[in-house]
Amino acid sequence: MSILVVGSVAFDTLKTPFGERTKILGGAATYFSLSASYFTQVRVVGVVGEDFTAEHEAVLTSRGIDVRGIERASGNTFHWGGEYGENVNEAQTKFTDLNVFENFVPKIPDAYEDSKYLFLANIQPELQLDVRRKMPRVALVGGDTMNLWIDIKRAELLETLQQVDILLINDGEAKLLASDHSLVRSAKKILTMGPRALVIKHGEYGATIFFGDGSHPFRAPALPIAEVHDPTGAGDSFAGGFVGYLAKAGRVDDATIRKAVIYGSVMASFNVEDFSLNRLKGLSPAAIKQRYREFKHLTHFEVDEEF
Amino acid sequence: MSILVVGSVAFDTLKTPFGERTKILGGAATYFSLSASYFTQVRVVGVVGEDFTAEHEAVLTSRGIDVRGIERASGNTFHWGGEYGENVNEAQTKFTDLNVFENFVPKIPDAYEDSKYLFLANIQPELQLDVRRKMPRVALVGGDTMNLWIDIKRAELLETLQQVDILLINDGEAKLLASDHSLVRSAKKILTMGPRALVIKHGEYGATIFFGDGSHPFRAPALPIAEVHDPTGAGDSFAGGFVGYLAKAGRVDDATIRKAVIYGSVMASFNVEDFSLNRLKGLSPAAIKQRYREFKHLTHFEVDEEF
Repeated sequence: MSILVVGSVAFDTLKTPFGERTKILGGAATYFSLSASYFTQVRVVGVVGEDFTAEHEAVLTSRGIDVRGIERASGNTFHWGGEYGENVNEAQTKFTDLNVFENFVPKIPDAYEDSKYLFLANIQPELQLDVRRKMPRVALVGGDTMNLWIDIKRAELLETLQQVDILLINDGEAKLLASDHSLVRSAKKILTMGPRALVIKHGEYGATIFFGDGSHPFRAPALPIAEVHDPTGAGDSFAGGFVGYLAKAGRVDDATIRKAVIYGSVMASFNVEDFSLNRLKGLSPAAIKQRYREFKHLTHFEVDEEF
Repeated sequence: MSILVVGSVAFDTLKTPFGERTKILGGAATYFSLSASYFTQVRVVGVVGEDFTAEHEAVLTSRGIDVRGIERASGNTFHWGGEYGENVNEAQTKFTDLNVFENFVPKIPDAYEDSKYLFLANIQPELQLDVRRKMPRVALVGGDTMNLWIDIKRAELLETLQQVDILLINDGEAKLLASDHSLVRSAKKILTMGPRALVIKHGEYGATIFFGDGSHPFRAPALPIAEVHDPTGAGDSFAGGFVGYLAKAGRVDDATIRKAVIYGSVMASFNVEDFSLNRLKGLSPAAIKQRYREFKHLTHFEVDEEF
């Protein structure tokens, strides 16, 4: 079943311990789409500028992603500059040129209206809510946000969260949103704000999904990776694998959600192995299947009959 | 099979978001022993002062722990003072009164010489090595250390590590020991220093065991706990459950080691629920078994045949 994703399509200029790259393809919607494209049909709503070439577009279309919702505006594409030090868990922003993204108003093509899944990547909460309202018939809504919106648009964000089924954020965002130092207490508080499930991403330590109905949480580790070349887009790749698998399965039972968290972790683990979308654009189903098995091996232990 | 543990028996005066306590029973060897006592026979080598009462000793002996190796010296018992803020992952040391621990020279009772397992809790590396040499026939040696020794006794520590089979340290210690910012690269480096297995403890995110023979790592999450009353001794409780289960099983195959990591996590999860040894001293096998099942539920996902 198809997924509509709204979010940034962007260029990144960045430096990591493995090198420097200038104006490489990035953006939350781009990472999400490529990742989810291995599971189901993806449709993108976003905006790019005149510097977005046919070659950039081909990264999406060659994976069968529907780009009719990517508007072309005059000016340049959103451009982010950042640097990761030896501790790749923390990015230092060098510049944020919003460019055409500054006045972005999402427009949903008629052909997208039958999308069954919606992912609201990290954009202003009012725009997320607007898109959500234009898609009243979707079966499931996933969403992301960031510290900036939690700080300066809290009221708007809280209104948006009422309309989100599964929120995917990181540790720091969860604690800021809940105003609490405990991750577990933060999760409990956030689950009273609207979402019925909350995925908290712990970076190199993995992710935990908490449920509002009192079901037990599920915790997945990240794959221990010695050489993280570029962590940009790891969270969006996770979201793409997670929502992508849920859409493919067409179910949201406990076993399916657990597998979806693992597929999210699988896609994030691939993404950080190279810059930009380099790793995500050429994966094979066999490679994804093999890495899923690696996660199984990483975490599996027997029940104990001896104790 | 019995375990000999050498390490501190101490008093802690501490403050956590859940309250303050003065001169409560603590110490690495104490936490380790109580935890391991649910799995096998434990023997302690340590030193206490005149302020260590029969009541304190009974916390150990009531769990069947052999305390003949705990020397009584004139003076006061080692006393640590510290505080945990809202972020319970970090302790702030207020004072460290070594007292009788300052001139501690481990003496091993004859009756302990047939111990099959040895755990060198966090004490000066030269003392660890001395004990290790006095126990040449043990089947397996586990060890711990801390930043202080990595900084000021690196040469002595590296010599000791040659004699340790499984090292159990936390993220910060591993990175400091390996002089590397990457956890996975640090693990690889440490596995060339002597130990054939390395458990890195990630606090609230769990633990990973890495192997020197190239076997795949195993990663266990920590149980998400909303109310960590007192994190003191979590690492030592983990070590007690881990080595305790290995000693009970009498095997070190892959499946057994994975279970041991989970039992370590189980015991640490109990320990942080209350101050001092309050939680560890009155557990039932049924409670331990039940929590092991909770870890299984927390991490279990099905293999996927659909992708």
